[in-house]
Amino acid sequence: MAHTGIHSQPVRSCLLLVVVSVWVQQVDGVWPLPQQLDQSADRNSLSPQRFSFTYGRDSAAQTGCSVLDAAFKRYFSIIFPDFTKGSENGLQYMWSEPQPFVVSVSVKTRGCDGYPDEDSDESYNLSVSEGQAVLRSVTVWGALRGLESFSQLVYQDDYGSYFINKTEIVDFPRFAFRGLLLDTSRHYLPLHAILKTLDAMAYSKFNVFHWHIVDDPSFPYQSRTFPDLSNKGAFHPFTHVYTQSDVMRVIEHARMRGIRVVPEFDSPGHTLSWGKGQPNLLTPCYKGDVPSGSFGPVDPTVDTTYKFMESLLKEVKFVFPDSYVHLGGDEVSFACCIMNMTAALNRTSIVWQDVFDYRERIPQDTVLEIWKGETYQAELSRMTQAGHRVLLSAPWYINHISYGQDWRNSYAVQPQNFSGTEEQKKLVIGGEVAMWGEYVDATNLNPRLWYEKIHRQDYNSYYYYLYRIFHIFVIFVFVKAESLCCSGEVVER
Amino acid sequence: MAHTGIHSQPVRSCLLLVVVSVWVQQVDGVWPLPQQLDQSADRNSLSPQRFSFTYGRDSAAQTGCSVLDAAFKRYFSIIFPDFTKGSENGLQYMWSEPQPFVVSVSVKTRGCDGYPDEDSDESYNLSVSEGQAVLRSVTVWGALRGLESFSQLVYQDDYGSYFINKTEIVDFPRFAFRGLLLDTSRHYLPLHAILKTLDAMAYSKFNVFHWHIVDDPSFPYQSRTFPDLSNKGAFHPFTHVYTQSDVMRVIEHARMRGIRVVPEFDSPGHTLSWGKGQPNLLTPCYKGDVPSGSFGPVDPTVDTTYKFMESLLKEVKFVFPDSYVHLGGDEVSFACCIMNMTAALNRTSIVWQDVFDYRERIPQDTVLEIWKGETYQAELSRMTQAGHRVLLSAPWYINHISYGQDWRNSYAVQPQNFSGTEEQKKLVIGGEVAMWGEYVDATNLNPRLWYEKIHRQDYNSYYYYLYRIFHIFVIFVFVKAESLCCSGEVVER
Repeated sequence: MAHTGIHSQPVRSCLLLVVVSVWVQQVDGVWPLPQQLDQSADRNSLSPQRFSFTYGRDSAAQTGCSVLDAAFKRYFSIIFPDFTKGSENGLQYMWSEPQPFVVSVSVKTRGCDGYPDEDSDESYNLSVSEGQAVLRSVTVWGALRGLESFSQLVYQDDYGSYFINKTEIVDFPRFAFRGLLLDTSRHYLPLHAILKTLDAMAYSKFNVFHWHIVDDPSFPYQSRTFPDLSNKGAFHPFTHVYTQSDVMRVIEHARMRGIRVVPEFDSPGHTLSWGKGQPNLLTPCYKGDVPSGSFGPVDPTVDTTYKFMESLLKEVKFVFPDSYVHLGGDEVSFACCIMNMTAALNRTSIVWQDVFDYRERIPQDTVLEIWKGETYQAELSRMTQAGHRVLLSAPWYINHISYGQDWRNSYAVQPQNFSGTEEQKKLVIGGEVAMWGEYVDATNLNPRLWYEKIHRQDYNSYYYYLYRIFHIFVIFVFVKAESLCCSGEVVER
Repeated sequence: MAHTGIHSQPVRSCLLLVVVSVWVQQVDGVWPLPQQLDQSADRNSLSPQRFSFTYGRDSAAQTGCSVLDAAFKRYFSIIFPDFTKGSENGLQYMWSEPQPFVVSVSVKTRGCDGYPDEDSDESYNLSVSEGQAVLRSVTVWGALRGLESFSQLVYQDDYGSYFINKTEIVDFPRFAFRGLLLDTSRHYLPLHAILKTLDAMAYSKFNVFHWHIVDDPSFPYQSRTFPDLSNKGAFHPFTHVYTQSDVMRVIEHARMRGIRVVPEFDSPGHTLSWGKGQPNLLTPCYKGDVPSGSFGPVDPTVDTTYKFMESLLKEVKFVFPDSYVHLGGDEVSFACCIMNMTAALNRTSIVWQDVFDYRERIPQDTVLEIWKGETYQAELSRMTQAGHRVLLSAPWYINHISYGQDWRNSYAVQPQNFSGTEEQKKLVIGGEVAMWGEYVDATNLNPRLWYEKIHRQDYNSYYYYLYRIFHIFVIFVFVKAESLCCSGEVVER
């Protein structure tokens, strides 16, 4: 982040404050940074044997709430990684009877069996005091965010004992749409790689999994209506497909973590693999008068194309519960034909910026996604001026490789930093990190996605101490706009 | 590999052969490719319940041989990954009583408690026939290579049953020194990351772990003689060090896999971290007449430097059993001073090419290692002309990142392809893959080292089938010079 000259004085003095605070033994920070974080040096010791989550008396959700019951179990393991159930090892090292600690969770609305959506309220308040923590939120999704923050507050000392400091957090996301794109067409990603990515997304409070499920190279989605699409278009018809039950598992795993699943069936370009299982779908190419044997995009001149697309999208709408669907539309100039068809879908469509750039007629409620390089600020101005909601992805093409601390560039992006009215800026609903699959498969997805950019912590390097200090100033772009300690929101006692 | 025009005819017809052979259900290949491999379509089925390793009657090593006893256990798990000891699940799916299969291993010389060295004979013969395999080698190290090849011959069918085809292998390495460098100074690598790398090295028949253990950024080696070197020079004095017992564990883990451990204590440059725990070791820099507070390389003008270096190298010699030690010597122009001191070491020294390039006086038995870019062929000529043994590393700086199938370049290198006599070519004793640590730590070491270059298999991609065919022609540079099927060494029946 670039500080202006005006801020340089407070920044310097608060740098000092941070340097001092690094020596106080406490947690290094909640990530992404909450809107308000007030921490004390007073600490509670926690013992896995006397630790519990419970529903507040006034909570709309109680035991039996699928999302939170599962989250309580999950976060117990996350908070106490050394503790194996059934082993009583921990007790040997205790000097005295451990004090009980209860985390009480209260939500205003139940909604345990629903799905997170664009309007879901993810705000929460967390208050950690002696022997207890109180977590309050409007929805179960907000409670999930609060549990994540709580888990990040717990730390171990050099002897393995667990602690949490007195803390007050008020938090809500800056943007409603915090997405991550995986591309399962260029390389197939096995189910476990997707589920693991969803876990990691939850740790960073991402809330949309944009599943770029098919593309030119392969069609791994096993369609009920058109089974030949994957039978003939996947890299392998049995081992390299997502069955209906795989897809359901992804959606449920995501739901449990407050993550939406937005599928992308990119057309009319990027459809080469579709043509293998659906004859006459693609436009044949010619050499002179003779078909050359190769194909272009989906053929917009024949009726069968529209019937096929309609059936496929109907299935997509049935299988994926989210109110958004991504229709692609990039790198071809007649996405209009497809766009027109989707009105009947009763879904909010997202399309890539190309559809706007080619001056197609676009329904007003269509969300536009920006992926092209350097001029995205001008594009943000133009699109919001035209009244469209916008997603920004261009500066977070995280599949690009480079040496060194390239994550700094990603973190410094301010999606609302473009010329336009306040109304226009509100039309930026969020952004997406994109991990395209040309050179990424299950063997390198995780390090490339999380360690090398998003969570680059340089723990073992000589940058580490530098980073520790820098870290406090780093803004996770989706959640927090202003620097932490200079806005007076953190009090070191 | 580039085929010349003369070979294009046999290559084409043998491509056909290979395309056909891909459809025959059998193992895809032993990696790296053995010198001679003769495979039949006749196959044995293997059952983990009736499978055993045994020592041949005429074997010099028998039960109690540490290296082979451990290898038998290890390879059992590698060969039968689905089989959990104690579970009898496998039996349920058997149609009939499984046939026994015995792998009989015979070595000529015992040497189970020694270390592999530059003269170790790694050759082996492996003969797989009905109900048995016979593995013969001169040394236990050769037997390890043969066990690795054996394990790679076993495959599973779609129902999970294990098979091995009738096979005859005659194999020996083309180069005696097949090294891999890890840099544990720029980022600390935890012990488990090093041990895992040694496992992977064994799968590829690498036989030297070049441990670039210290450098400018940190000094993680915990010295007995000079404990302050790591106390003050490591990233952390307790968590980011290699204790004496850590080092012993690495050496023993390597020995069990036939891998030598050659430590590098790079000097007189690359020693900034040394200066923290050893006052007056480094040359102070001046601004005018005033010390600037920063330091240059090891100070060659004071006596204490030599006494320190002598004590440290004495310890190194005591701790690391290998007959080689790497002394660095890169990027500074007076390595001579250090070189002279090492005669008393009674070890073979390796130094980086810089020492040769600066025309220092170098003992004739010093091994020179080439790391500089494009002109390594000319350097190979000059060094071997001067009668030095040479290691090539320049074309295998695998920490460099790039898109796509960059491994092709690494695989196409021919270390003896330079102008010189046959005598000169024999002086190329091998090469090293180098994984420098600027941007690599435990989170991305494994994918970057093994999946993205050395073992790039593109399993899940659309390059996969192409690769399967290409694979057969690929030469692993250290082991095999000529293309496989065109030299008549493989017979498809």
